[in-house]
Amino acid sequence: MTDPLVVVGGDAAGMSAASKCKRDSPETDVLVFEKGEWVSYGACGLPYYVKGEIRELDDLVSVTAEEFREERDVDLRTNHEVVAIDTEARTVTVDSPDGTFDQPYEDLLVSTGARAVEPPFEGMDLDGVFTLHSMESARDVRAYLHEDAEWLAAETGSGYGETVHEYAAMESPDAVAVVGGGYIGIEMAEAFAAHDHEVHVFEMLPTLLQPFGEAAADVVAEHLRDQGVHVHLNTAVESFEGDACVRSIRTDSGSFDVDMALVGVGVAPNAELAEAAGIDLGETGAISVDDYGRTSAAHVYAAGDCAEARNLVTGEPDHVPLALTANRAGRAIGQTLAGDPTPTGGIVGTAVVKAFDLEVARTGVIDEERAREAGFDPVSVTITDETRAHYYPGGTEIQITMVGDRESGTLLGASMVGEEGVSKRIDTVATALHADMTVSEVEYLDLAYAPPFSPVWDPVLTAAKVLAGKLEG
Amino acid sequence: MTDPLVVVGGDAAGMSAASKCKRDSPETDVLVFEKGEWVSYGACGLPYYVKGEIRELDDLVSVTAEEFREERDVDLRTNHEVVAIDTEARTVTVDSPDGTFDQPYEDLLVSTGARAVEPPFEGMDLDGVFTLHSMESARDVRAYLHEDAEWLAAETGSGYGETVHEYAAMESPDAVAVVGGGYIGIEMAEAFAAHDHEVHVFEMLPTLLQPFGEAAADVVAEHLRDQGVHVHLNTAVESFEGDACVRSIRTDSGSFDVDMALVGVGVAPNAELAEAAGIDLGETGAISVDDYGRTSAAHVYAAGDCAEARNLVTGEPDHVPLALTANRAGRAIGQTLAGDPTPTGGIVGTAVVKAFDLEVARTGVIDEERAREAGFDPVSVTITDETRAHYYPGGTEIQITMVGDRESGTLLGASMVGEEGVSKRIDTVATALHADMTVSEVEYLDLAYAPPFSPVWDPVLTAAKVLAGKLEG
Repeated sequence: MTDPLVVVGGDAAGMSAASKCKRDSPETDVLVFEKGEWVSYGACGLPYYVKGEIRELDDLVSVTAEEFREERDVDLRTNHEVVAIDTEARTVTVDSPDGTFDQPYEDLLVSTGARAVEPPFEGMDLDGVFTLHSMESARDVRAYLHEDAEWLAAETGSGYGETVHEYAAMESPDAVAVVGGGYIGIEMAEAFAAHDHEVHVFEMLPTLLQPFGEAAADVVAEHLRDQGVHVHLNTAVESFEGDACVRSIRTDSGSFDVDMALVGVGVAPNAELAEAAGIDLGETGAISVDDYGRTSAAHVYAAGDCAEARNLVTGEPDHVPLALTANRAGRAIGQTLAGDPTPTGGIVGTAVVKAFDLEVARTGVIDEERAREAGFDPVSVTITDETRAHYYPGGTEIQITMVGDRESGTLLGASMVGEEGVSKRIDTVATALHADMTVSEVEYLDLAYAPPFSPVWDPVLTAAKVLAGKLEG
Repeated sequence: MTDPLVVVGGDAAGMSAASKCKRDSPETDVLVFEKGEWVSYGACGLPYYVKGEIRELDDLVSVTAEEFREERDVDLRTNHEVVAIDTEARTVTVDSPDGTFDQPYEDLLVSTGARAVEPPFEGMDLDGVFTLHSMESARDVRAYLHEDAEWLAAETGSGYGETVHEYAAMESPDAVAVVGGGYIGIEMAEAFAAHDHEVHVFEMLPTLLQPFGEAAADVVAEHLRDQGVHVHLNTAVESFEGDACVRSIRTDSGSFDVDMALVGVGVAPNAELAEAAGIDLGETGAISVDDYGRTSAAHVYAAGDCAEARNLVTGEPDHVPLALTANRAGRAIGQTLAGDPTPTGGIVGTAVVKAFDLEVARTGVIDEERAREAGFDPVSVTITDETRAHYYPGGTEIQITMVGDRESGTLLGASMVGEEGVSKRIDTVATALHADMTVSEVEYLDLAYAPPFSPVWDPVLTAAKVLAGKLEG
């Protein structure tokens, strides 16, 4: 009898692979070890759960553990942590509630995800200081805000542990420090502001949302300030201070009274398990994989936030831990393991984030230094345009930065920010990047026009037109 | 001294060419003859002017005649109609307020636009029966609705003629017949409904919005009915009846009492002037042009709604009279005539229309018969998905039809309909068509995801995934 396909980690990549493999090859045994309780949940929704727009954590689950077991016939073991991989013996060592055991595998998928980076600040262990790294942590944050005592009482009945009670019993915060001005920081600033807390965002770099480029980030910072958020740029956090609870945050620009803090300074791939097994990591620190998700060890695959993916613009491995990449790579590996070899697909680094009333999006290579490292001679323009025909009511400004390569005229990337029509407009540019289009080719795209939806020349076309002019000039 | 560049028709294509040529080559004399009063206006905005969302006709003008003359140094003659072209002598004959004269040209651009088709129904000349073919006609329609007497009084002071007074003096209509269920028909149904008139839409074909495909059109028809519009499909209009004013509309499915009618059964290219000069028309009836907008006559170009453009999906000349195509071709020809030969660019037939609360969009080849004529073996799927993450509030349904070629796997086209995120999502597919992508390549696009803006797998990816499966099957 063949050993099973073993999957380590039951979120997007892992469960996509397990489901796809089982569907295409029902005779394959598929065994998933998940160290926590939750599987296949929408971590991207956690800020909106804290904000209160999503009522229950369960709402974030797309497929439950039971459904995987009963409907998809996946042998899913929650509370099972894989602590070692032996790539020679083709076994994993598993800590379970019933003890430790070794499990042989035919093929192995490492989909251990990523974790919130915990910076070495003094006072990280004070009550009221959180990271947003899991369903449980989001519940704790929401409990600490506890504007909603009845809901909490109901929730705590359903077996999620005692921390919720503890946090709900503490005093509700007045001022919240958000440490880190990336996606999570921006989304959480919105969530806290929605609860009428005073919000401070601290960012070490000169701009928020660094991967979105300075021009977009400046618009976001101004918008956050308009919303009453205190934005502290070029500000390094040094420590949290307090007794049991945090009472202030100390930075290189002074101290600020806060009684809650959310630390979102980035994520790191959970690559230690693979590394300890002698599997190669890439320069990014994530697990190195080929176009089919294969690691350096035979029969071992990796996918999701713990693994690299090929950036189609630079041609180099990249680490952009996002949901679509994880789902897609997991699904492709499941298909490969079911007997139909399927590449996991490259990425172009497309991302979008909501920042209060703004949509902010990016794709490709925007950073000029990074472009030069990849061998390009970047030329960039930033334009401001309208989202609708000039005469049609309700239009808003949209700002687009577009970058191209001087020598080849190739499109390299773009960022956008505005109140509407940003999130899907970036996809036009992403598609052009997949097709390796020149900026002039983008200028000639036949895009949709009607007065309620864009000017005759869509802002993407206008940006390309201006950039093409500059590239020729 | 060289003769001037002469442009016939001062709307999108003509004024784009004139402006671009003059900007790039200030020494070239540019002479534009426009038979009416208005230049460079947003005809696409007329339904929203009638609806009342746009207050004044002047708001639709992007650049005024004066600005063209004074700021752009274009010799623009309004109320000058070109009545003949002599391609041998290189002259045009012009009827002007001061008499008829011949004007020599170095190069000639025919940008005479298109007109509303006037079907040979009895009673077309009754009061209350309109087409929407010009700024003036839109003003007449709005005057006839005259819910806004003060505004009318003010407007009629500014020299736009007496018809507005006449129409405003007539009785306000109760029920309006919209004849034709294309763009104009749908947009005007929305405009009339906004004024609380009873609205009937009559369409000869089995579906509204025929170029958008049956699946999208069915959703639109249902939505219009939900909005209280009477939708009559498979219904041929025979005549209008009444005394001075229209009182009823007779169809092959019976008569209906109406006291106003808007006939929007399509547009026809104004190609007669060119045809009379011996210039070749294409099979579509529009003026045939090469990739630089050159007609069959030396030194004569054509652009805009009177001319064909190359459809990049079929490789054949096509006639899709839309604003972006006109602007782009005009601009390219202006650049060419300024000494920098520039192709006008192909089209993929992208279009979007607002239908009450819906956005409806299309691109490429959707119609299976047309696909077969172009040498493809079309395979199509229709999926329904959500516009946001399943747990994020406010998401709505989006329906996508996607078509591919069985043998090559090439993407051929798509249509979409939904309450949000349609108008710019179609651009992703349009861009993929420009790049000649396969359906599988579309499935692997790295599109933007965040819970407020799409599911992890954007509906475009899901449609491509399902279609790719069917193409392989």
